[in-house]
Formats: sequence, structure tokens, C-alpha cells
Amino acid sequence: MKASDLAKAVGGVLCGEDVEIFACAGLEEARSGDVSFCKDPKHTAMVGSTAASAVFLPEDWSAECPCTSIRVSSPDRACMTAAKLLAPPEPVRAPGVHPTAVIDASVEMGEGVHIGPFTVIEKGAKIGKGAIIEAQVFIGEGCSVGEGTHIYPQVTLREGTVLGKDCIIHCGVRLGGDGYGFTNSRGEDGTVVIEKIPQLGIVEIGDGVEIGSNTTIDRARIGRTYIGPMTKIDNLVQIGHNVKVKGYSGLIAQSGVAGSTEIGYGCLIWAQAGISGHIKIADGVQVGPQCGVPQSLDGSSKYVIGSPAMSMKDMAAITLAPKMIQKLKAEIKEIKAALAAK
Amino acid sequence: MKASDLAKAVGGVLCGEDVEIFACAGLEEARSGDVSFCKDPKHTAMVGSTAASAVFLPEDWSAECPCTSIRVSSPDRACMTAAKLLAPPEPVRAPGVHPTAVIDASVEMGEGVHIGPFTVIEKGAKIGKGAIIEAQVFIGEGCSVGEGTHIYPQVTLREGTVLGKDCIIHCGVRLGGDGYGFTNSRGEDGTVVIEKIPQLGIVEIGDGVEIGSNTTIDRARIGRTYIGPMTKIDNLVQIGHNVKVKGYSGLIAQSGVAGSTEIGYGCLIWAQAGISGHIKIADGVQVGPQCGVPQSLDGSSKYVIGSPAMSMKDMAAITLAPKMIQKLKAEIKEIKAALAAK
Amino acid sequence: MKASDLAKAVGGVLCGEDVEIFACAGLEEARSGDVSFCKDPKHTAMVGSTAASAVFLPEDWSAECPCTSIRVSSPDRACMTAAKLLAPPEPVRAPGVHPTAVIDASVEMGEGVHIGPFTVIEKGAKIGKGAIIEAQVFIGEGCSVGEGTHIYPQVTLREGTVLGKDCIIHCGVRLGGDGYGFTNSRGEDGTVVIEKIPQLGIVEIGDGVEIGSNTTIDRARIGRTYIGPMTKIDNLVQIGHNVKVKGYSGLIAQSGVAGSTEIGYGCLIWAQAGISGHIKIADGVQVGPQCGVPQSLDGSSKYVIGSPAMSMKDMAAITLAPKMIQKLKAEIKEIKAALAAK
Repeated sequence: MKASDLAKAVGGVLCGEDVEIFACAGLEEARSGDVSFCKDPKHTAMVGSTAASAVFLPEDWSAECPCTSIRVSSPDRACMTAAKLLAPPEPVRAPGVHPTAVIDASVEMGEGVHIGPFTVIEKGAKIGKGAIIEAQVFIGEGCSVGEGTHIYPQVTLREGTVLGKDCIIHCGVRLGGDGYGFTNSRGEDGTVVIEKIPQLGIVEIGDGVEIGSNTTIDRARIGRTYIGPMTKIDNLVQIGHNVKVKGYSGLIAQSGVAGSTEIGYGCLIWAQAGISGHIKIADGVQVGPQCGVPQSLDGSSKYVIGSPAMSMKDMAAITLAPKMIQKLKAEIKEIKAALAAK
Repeated sequence: MKASDLAKAVGGVLCGEDVEIFACAGLEEARSGDVSFCKDPKHTAMVGSTAASAVFLPEDWSAECPCTSIRVSSPDRACMTAAKLLAPPEPVRAPGVHPTAVIDASVEMGEGVHIGPFTVIEKGAKIGKGAIIEAQVFIGEGCSVGEGTHIYPQVTLREGTVLGKDCIIHCGVRLGGDGYGFTNSRGEDGTVVIEKIPQLGIVEIGDGVEIGSNTTIDRARIGRTYIGPMTKIDNLVQIGHNVKVKGYSGLIAQSGVAGSTEIGYGCLIWAQAGISGHIKIADGVQVGPQCGVPQSLDGSSKYVIGSPAMSMKDMAAITLAPKMIQKLKAEIKEIKAALAAK
Repeated sequence: MKASDLAKAVGGVLCGEDVEIFACAGLEEARSGDVSFCKDPKHTAMVGSTAASAVFLPEDWSAECPCTSIRVSSPDRACMTAAKLLAPPEPVRAPGVHPTAVIDASVEMGEGVHIGPFTVIEKGAKIGKGAIIEAQVFIGEGCSVGEGTHIYPQVTLREGTVLGKDCIIHCGVRLGGDGYGFTNSRGEDGTVVIEKIPQLGIVEIGDGVEIGSNTTIDRARIGRTYIGPMTKIDNLVQIGHNVKVKGYSGLIAQSGVAGSTEIGYGCLIWAQAGISGHIKIADGVQVGPQCGVPQSLDGSSKYVIGSPAMSMKDMAAITLAPKMIQKLKAEIKEIKAALAAK
């Protein structure tokens, strides 16, 4: 796209050569072919050294610019508009079933559904109006996919999984696996005896839920593992059997929730945090990155960190312990000297 | 299913309306259409406020019940029976090869094998009697799958992988990847030089092993990465090259074991724990959640926690350090006062 | 392979029975059919108790060997040679497109490209000379795969992803997912309002990068998530949107890097470490296993551990705090006694 076309699109004024622009990037990351932006004169030096081919600048920018500039009233908003224009086009997933898809005759499909190549949908499944099921997806027996839900390639839904409306399920998500359910005992001769516990329930996902790449959510032992509406789950998250996430919560990448735990409304579980099984996290609680939560959190502390989980204040006290010890050591030394002098 | 049919199935007595039942759930999680259970009068209040459509109750239950009840001698056992009746039917994987599967002519297959759509099996592979290989699986050259083993959709087995009998391999498992094997050095001019170490070995999985969704197990550099019999591995676990898990152990979700480490018999590695490379964990040791193990564990401590790993007692001492410091501080203050008074 | 053939291949002398050899393994792991090696007389006992069928030994080895031995000048080098001979043959991926692959007519393909069964390549994608795309891969619209790059089965590249030359992408890798990008606010009535932020950028991977099984790398919000040349990424790693890894770095299994963070040249991020968003890690810094990095690291500490990240010295001080406290306690007791005696 020509810089002049971008200028026109954002209602700006082109200064300098009419270069070809391919992408947006920050001033430091930018390279030839990129457009960047700067709104604050204190970043003048960064503009001066950018490798971008063009920069959105305020109309009254007075410092030098080493490349083409596009003068606009709001450089950040202009860059956002440019980003949309320069973004790879969102692929069109037109209604229709790809001829290679293997779909059981009993599957019920709403209007306008898109089914990609090599996707398998087993008997008794229901696909809601306008749903997009991309390539190489597996949807097991009796699953149900809500209206407008978008499933990216290579997702697997084991039998009986229920997906709400307007969900987004990213590549490699695994819903309805058996998870870890075993009894572990010792035989009469002292040997370890391990038996599988049947996992008879399902996974049920509420409306508006988004689930990130390669995340895994296990089917319930009995009943349902439930992810409430508008919950947003990042990549590589693990959610055990019979977990209940009430809704409007976020679970960031690589966090994990063990079996039968309940996460309240509006919680935020940060990256790599781990939450034990059979406990409750109160509404609105935030669990910090890498935090390990062994017991229920009643909401008296709105943010916990550490492993095991504690308040910021308690964590600070542990971190400061060595400094405090040095101080006490010095005081004791003084006392000893004073004592000797008496 | 009608509540009356459930009552008949468990040998119970129906009290109240003959409602339609779709699923089982705990008293608090239950919603309309669910059957729940209560065996203990101390949970009377929970029965009173449940949203379930029916509840299994003891024969002598005297408190009120807001919905249909089914009186039985053992409510929890009755609910387990109901769960089995109400569970999504386990899909039938009848013997036979789906016409879309791409199977090399040299592949040896036992009797009664099921191969799903879009599965690829490369030359020289052997599939044991009664094995179930579901849809969209990739089985590389020379792999071997034991009798009765069940592979769920979208699993990949790189060349040479050996799977024992009666294993269960869940969706998205990756066996036999190269893992992380590089030499890292500095060139004469100080630049980083990184070279790939060929990974010449295989992955070998013993009998009765279960591997959870999206778990990854790397092929050996030389010889085999070995997972011993009856080991149960949860979702999103990482096992490095040349690791040896002797058998009858459990590895919970998101835990990781680095290269060439040996895990003894009957160990339990809890969620998000990490075990360094080239060490040994003695038989029967448990490694706590999020624990980081930098050195071999000889079994003198049967349970370790923390990062780096330590005994529960040592962990408690660190956590209590701030409290101890406050105490010492108070004592020093007293001493100073006493000293001043002398 | 006969032991005599192995002896010939490594230029060694066979002593004992000419047994059949199937694989290589260490002395302790070895079983019948394996060849092992020992170069140091101090491991004589391990040779004595090995279950291997043959062992490479130095020419002047004098202790007993319970099985066949092959005498060589360098036993470890001989074993490496044997490992290569005994390894499962690397599958041949001959040039050509499998007839089941679904490839848009607009896709540009260089010479000698291999495309496996059930692979999908969408419109506008470019596949460089000699690239290997194995079975069941998904390559979205407008993606670009560099010359000689090898993509293993069941990888997904969302639209616009750019892969450099000579990369290796292992099974189950997800490039270009949306990741976690939401605005989280409170509505006028106090309810949580969550809105998706469009992720308009791409993922760009430099030359010579290797990415391990089931790793996920998110597309940029604007511009590119960039993994610089020769970076080596292990399994189950998470890399957020707009992260920039300059190059020649390693990221070990299950580590994670949050959005917009920059990792310098030649860094090493150890297993299960987590790095916060919007920070910079200086060139050459190592982040220890399970370490959590909340702030930029300027390189003044070349190795950090702990969560939050600190120097080894600071970590030691915290771990030693309980011991120090005991010491101070004893001193205070003495002081009190001395004070009482005055």
C-alpha cells in the first residue's frame, strides 16, 4: 500500500517520498516497509533513529524525521486504522461443507455453517446456525456447537461436549479428555495398584467463551466440567474434571486448575499459576503469576502471590528477612560490646 | 430418562413427580433436569436449596425435599449407577479401516483393529490385535502399537515409537519429537554457535500406560526414553529425552522431567512440578505441586515441596522467618532496656 | 544387526558370541539385545552387572565382561557410530504432493517440495524450494514457508505467518493464534465487561529456528511477533503477542514469555520460567528454571533464579534465614544469661 493511500485513509498529510508500506510496528521494532507512529515530542530521539519507512506524527511536530511522515491529529489512532488496512485479510469462511469432510448422516446443521476439509463430525452432533468449523477438526458423538461459534483447525471435542454461542476455540484445544482419575492403593503384597475411575460426565462451555491454543479441559467424573459465560482462557491452560468457572473470568497462559475447584465471577488467574483441587476462589480474586493456591480464598485478600499463596505484604516480609537478620545481628553485636563494657 | 426408570434401575422408591432427568450433579452445582444425592442429614439445608429436579435420599430421610426424591439404601451408590446410565454413550469403534485412511501396504495389523478417518500409518508399522486408532492420527515408520491400545484423535507417533498393550493415548499427544538437544558454544569471534545434536533413539511406552491430552515425550538421543508399565501421565506434561520412568508412577498436569532423569517405582509428581536432568528420584517419593527438584532424591524425604525442593519442615521454617524475626526484635528491645537500666 | 557387523563398522575386535544387536543404551538401562559402552575402569562393576548383550570396551580392558565385548580405541565414539547405524531410518520425504492434500490453486511452490497426506494449504501461500510439509498440516492464507524448512505432522500456521529458511517445526506447534487480548472493565452497573482486542499482526520466524512439540506463539496485536534467527524453542512453550526474541537464544520446555517483551541475543530461558510482559531481557542473560521475572534484566546479573527473580546470592540468603535466626536466638539467650548474672 502506498503511503499516500494511507494518508488518504486516515485524513492526514503526506510529507516526503510516497513509499510502499507493508506493515505497522513500534518505532524500535520497525524496519524498512513499516509505518510507525509517535505522539509525544519526548520520543523525538526514537523517531530520529527508527528504521521505519514512514511515521505518523502530530500536525505540529517540529523535530526532524528521517523518513516519510504522515501528519495527523491523532497518530496512535491513525496507526490503528493503518494496522487494520495492512493486516492479513481475515480468511472468508463461506457457508458450505467441504467435500472431503466426513459427517455422519444424523448430524443436525443450522443455516450458513462452514465445515472445512478433513473435518470429522460423528453421529448425533448438532452444529448451530452460522458456526464455523475449520479444517481437520474432530467433533465426537452427541456434541453440540452453539450458533456463531468459531472452531479453528485441529481442535478435538470428545463425545458429549457442549459449546455455547459465539465461542472462539483456537487450534489444538482438547475438550472432554479423561484427565487424571485413578485410585492408587497398595495390594496385600505391598505392590502399587492403580485403577482407572470412569469419567462419565461432559464438558460444558458457556456463551462467549474463548479458549487459547493447545489448552486442555477434562470431562467431568460425573455431571459437568463447566466454564461459565464470557470466560477467556489463554494458551496451554489445564482445567481438571468437575471444575466450575462461574463466568467473566480470565485464565492466563500455562495456568492450571485441579479437579472440582470452583472459580468465582470476574477472577483473574495469571500465567503459570496453579490452583489445587476441591477448593473455592471467591468472586473477583486475582491469583498472581506462578502463584500456588493450596486452600480456598474467601476474597479477604484480593490479590495473592507466592507458592504457597500469600498476600503481597507477607511475601515482602519473607523477601526482606535476610536484611532484617543483618540488622538484628548488628544490634546484638552492639549489645554484646555494651555488656562487656559494663 | 424418567425418574421412575432411574428408581427402578437402582431399586429405589419414587416420591413426587415423575420428572425427566438428563444428568447427575452435586447438590450445589445441580440445575433443572439433574439428579443429585445426599446421604447425610447434616446437609439438609443443601437439599432444601438445590436446583436439582430429583435427589437420591436415604430411606429414612425425614427432612423436607423441594423436588422429587428417590429413596434408596445407599444414595451415593445409586447416584453412581445413575451417572453410568445417563452418561454419553461410549462411542462404538467397530473393527475396520475407514476408507479415507492412508495406510502403507507394508503395515501389519492384528484382528479387530479399528482405524478412523484421515489417519495415516506409514511403512513398517505394526498394529496389535484389537487396537483402536481413532481419526486423524499419524503413526510414523516402524512404529509398534500393542494389543488393545486405544489412541484418540490427532495423536502423532514419530518413527520408531513403541507402545505397549492396553495403553490409552489421549488427543494431541506427541511421542518421539526431537526435544531440545543442541550444543551451545562461542565461536572464535565471540558469536554464539548453536548446533543440533541428532536424536537417534526412540520412545518406548510400557503396558497399561495412560497419557493425557497434549502431553509431549521426546525420543532418546541414543537408546530409549522409557515410560514403565502402569504409569499414568496427565495433560500437558513434558518428558525429555532419555528419561526413564520405572513404572506405576503418576505425573500430574503440566509437570516436566528434564533429560536423562530416572523416576523410581510408585512415585507421584504433582502438578507443575519440574525435575532437573541427569538425576534420580527414589522409589515411592512424592514431589509436591510446583516443586523444583535440582538434585537426586534418595527417599529419605518421602515428600518434598518448594523450589528448590525441600522438606515440609524446612519450608515451614522459611515461611515463619518473618514471625521469628519480629520475636527476636522484641527480645532485643527488652534487653536494651534492661541494659540501659543497669 | 550382528555384533560382528558392528565391530567391522567401528574398526573393533569382537570378543565372545556374535549376538544380534537392536539398539544402544547406557550400562544401567541396557537390556538383552542392546549394545552399551564403558571407557573407564572405575565403572567395572557396572559392566559386570549390565544386562546388555554387548559392550564396547577399550582395547586394554582387563576386568571381566559378562557378555560379548567389542574392543575399540574409543568406546564412546564407537557407541555413537553404532547408534547411528541402529537408529530407526529417517523417513524419506521425496518431492511430490500427496493426492489427498488440499492445496489452493494460487499457492506458489518451489522445486522439490514434499507435501504429505491430508495437508491443507490455503490461497496465496508460498512454499520455498525443498521444504517438507508432512501429513495433516494446516497452512493458512498468505503464509510463507522458507526454503528447506521442515514441518512435522499436525502443525497449524494461521493466516499470514512467515517462516524463514531451514526451520524445523515439530508436531502440534500453533503459530499465529490470537492469544489473550481483551479489555476488562466495569460497566455502570458494576458488572464485568470484557471485549476482544483484534489481533491484526502476524508471527514471523527467522532462519534456522527450531520449535518443539505443542509450543504456541501468538500473532501480534499490530506488526509482528518475532523469533530471531537460530533461536531454539523446546516443547510446550508459550510466547505472547508482539514478543521479540532477537536471536541465537534458547527457551526450554514449558517456559512462557508474556506480550511485548524483548529477549536479547544469546539468552537462555530455562524450563518452566515465566517472563512478564513489556520488559527487556539483556543479551546473554540466563533465567533459571521456574524463575519468575517481573522486571527488565539489564545483564548486571547474568543468571537469575527464584520467583520473583533474584541473584543466586539473594536466594541463598532467604534459604539460610531459618539457620541464621536460630543462631541469633542462641546469642540472645546467652546475652540474657550474662545480663542476669551482672
